[in-house]
Amino acid sequence: MKKIILIPDSFKGTMSSGEICSIMNESIKKTYPSVQVISIPVADGGEGSVDAFLCAVGGKKQSVMVKGPFFEDMESYFGIIDNGETAVIEMAACAGLPLVGDNKDVRNTTTYGVGQLISAALENGCRKIIMGLGGSATNDAGTGAAAALGVKFTDEAGVEFIPVGGTLTDITHIDVSGMHPALKSVEFITMCDIDNPLYGQTGAAYIFGPQKGATPEIVTELDNGLRHIAEVIKTDLLKDVSELKGAGSAGGMGGGMVAFFNSKLQMGIETVLDTVNFDKIVRGADIIFSGEGKIDSQSIRGKVVIGVAKRAKKANVPLVAIVGDIGDDIEAAYEEGVSAIFSINRVAVEFKIAQTRAKDDLALTMDNIMRFMHRLESI
Amino acid sequence: MKKIILIPDSFKGTMSSGEICSIMNESIKKTYPSVQVISIPVADGGEGSVDAFLCAVGGKKQSVMVKGPFFEDMESYFGIIDNGETAVIEMAACAGLPLVGDNKDVRNTTTYGVGQLISAALENGCRKIIMGLGGSATNDAGTGAAAALGVKFTDEAGVEFIPVGGTLTDITHIDVSGMHPALKSVEFITMCDIDNPLYGQTGAAYIFGPQKGATPEIVTELDNGLRHIAEVIKTDLLKDVSELKGAGSAGGMGGGMVAFFNSKLQMGIETVLDTVNFDKIVRGADIIFSGEGKIDSQSIRGKVVIGVAKRAKKANVPLVAIVGDIGDDIEAAYEEGVSAIFSINRVAVEFKIAQTRAKDDLALTMDNIMRFMHRLESI
Repeated sequence: MKKIILIPDSFKGTMSSGEICSIMNESIKKTYPSVQVISIPVADGGEGSVDAFLCAVGGKKQSVMVKGPFFEDMESYFGIIDNGETAVIEMAACAGLPLVGDNKDVRNTTTYGVGQLISAALENGCRKIIMGLGGSATNDAGTGAAAALGVKFTDEAGVEFIPVGGTLTDITHIDVSGMHPALKSVEFITMCDIDNPLYGQTGAAYIFGPQKGATPEIVTELDNGLRHIAEVIKTDLLKDVSELKGAGSAGGMGGGMVAFFNSKLQMGIETVLDTVNFDKIVRGADIIFSGEGKIDSQSIRGKVVIGVAKRAKKANVPLVAIVGDIGDDIEAAYEEGVSAIFSINRVAVEFKIAQTRAKDDLALTMDNIMRFMHRLESI
Repeated sequence: MKKIILIPDSFKGTMSSGEICSIMNESIKKTYPSVQVISIPVADGGEGSVDAFLCAVGGKKQSVMVKGPFFEDMESYFGIIDNGETAVIEMAACAGLPLVGDNKDVRNTTTYGVGQLISAALENGCRKIIMGLGGSATNDAGTGAAAALGVKFTDEAGVEFIPVGGTLTDITHIDVSGMHPALKSVEFITMCDIDNPLYGQTGAAYIFGPQKGATPEIVTELDNGLRHIAEVIKTDLLKDVSELKGAGSAGGMGGGMVAFFNSKLQMGIETVLDTVNFDKIVRGADIIFSGEGKIDSQSIRGKVVIGVAKRAKKANVPLVAIVGDIGDDIEAAYEEGVSAIFSINRVAVEFKIAQTRAKDDLALTMDNIMRFMHRLESI
């Protein structure tokens, strides 16, 4: 045993990806003290994504003064990796739901600060920007961020303004001619693991509005705004985001990233795998440990374990999934490259109890897998 | 992978040892179709022990008409193994609690039929008798069985009688001079996994009387009877079973087996391991799977997994324990020879739900262990 790779998803609400890596590493070292362990905490685009990337590939965290969700001044940050070439931004760092506390007012929140983070990244010379969506307090379709970078939104009277969720319907024209010039040569990748479209019954307002404080009346108002801006984007920017999968993420910012910044929307795990240069790292690895809170037939699409498994299979390296629950219909996971799946549940207790003991149970499960591997080596 | 041994305990109330062997075997064959699998269902002395021995080593089941718990005629059975040399008797086959149904009356039940089974085994030429205790409806200290084989119990008036739980105090003398002559040259091994003494607060009546229908008053009466017979045994047979560990099993029959039949009391798993000639079978095995409902610090003494692990360690064969729950403080298990422990729990649900899905969950856990082993072989 020379090289082991750890690349687990978080167990949502229980353990972060970084915590899981750390517990697994400690357990491995008990049995194989001198094995090389490569930990790749997986960023999901939400809070903690910058730290996850920095931990996985190294780099630095840059502080920036920007506008917060209500245009207030605040200190935020982004990550610089890849020898300064790439910036990692999590929109939650200045437009996240935890920042508004009990003052949830999704009609009036902005992503303006996110645009300022992009601007700071450009000034730092970054040529590639990885944007993490998730955990937003906003529903402005990324118009705030666009405005911060020179996109002009004007109303019926021709007056320029910075739209928020409640004023999207006031937009009559969008003018991108004055955008930050560096944006032309920058590559954007937006991490996006959901399929929701910009508007409609499965869109940003209906699905995610309520958790941001929207009443049913406000949801309708926000949804109308998103529907309206899709029309203006079609007319003025000649782009159609009206049925784009993932456009509804982060209050429509998924759609805005495509419309204003020509971004690609990409599964988070694919972004991580590409960024850490996984196909190179995996060479010579004896085994990979991945995992997630629950593996089931849903996991086959876009989830971390399967994303890693496909690469593991190509590289012919065994991948073991350590999970919370194992659902039914998991045959497809084996076909995609998962060698075996182990649950950390070690006592029959309901989830709310299991959750409190998850760290101990993960450690014990890893201990036993390591003991097992080590013992098998000797026969 | 050439040879795999399965020797699990039952998961009490969930799966029998035989069922577990069968599920494990099916799972193994999916990955290793041509591997030799040796299944050794573990008898615990209670109901099903005869079948377990017959399954493990082959042999035949012999039907015999004997007396049931209330001296009624009934058809019972015992097993003949080892080319006719050894008989396996489970006392529950004619003195078990299920046989009395709702008519629990522990003062009046007898082990007389068990003596008749011993007698039938002697007539069949068996020179060794393995007696399984457990699941009894009786509290007669094995006096019924002894009476069936010629031991005379007399009361104060010198009148011979067959004692039951409620009349032990009437015994004034015990005379073994008329015992079945073949008994002298027969070896008895009684399977006994509990430590309870014959009488007192941790004795047969106090601990097991209530589940056999005894009220607190009856418990006291039964306990006095057991205390009394220990005195008579000491005086007339010159044996002291008053503090013997395990004497309290099966309504004091543990003590009776020692006093009347010169039996050895031995852990069930040791009896099974000796009987199947485990130390020979284990040679050349690649791996052993054992298991039990819960492994914890209690398991270290006398439980199946640890019993097997000690032999596995001596033979230098890896042993994996597949269990329901994994308790805390299991370090000692590794020291005794357990290579790794895996729980079959794969979803966080409470025990009453986990129990209903145990067979599926065991199968899935074994599937994954087999997939894992097979994949590791290729690196």
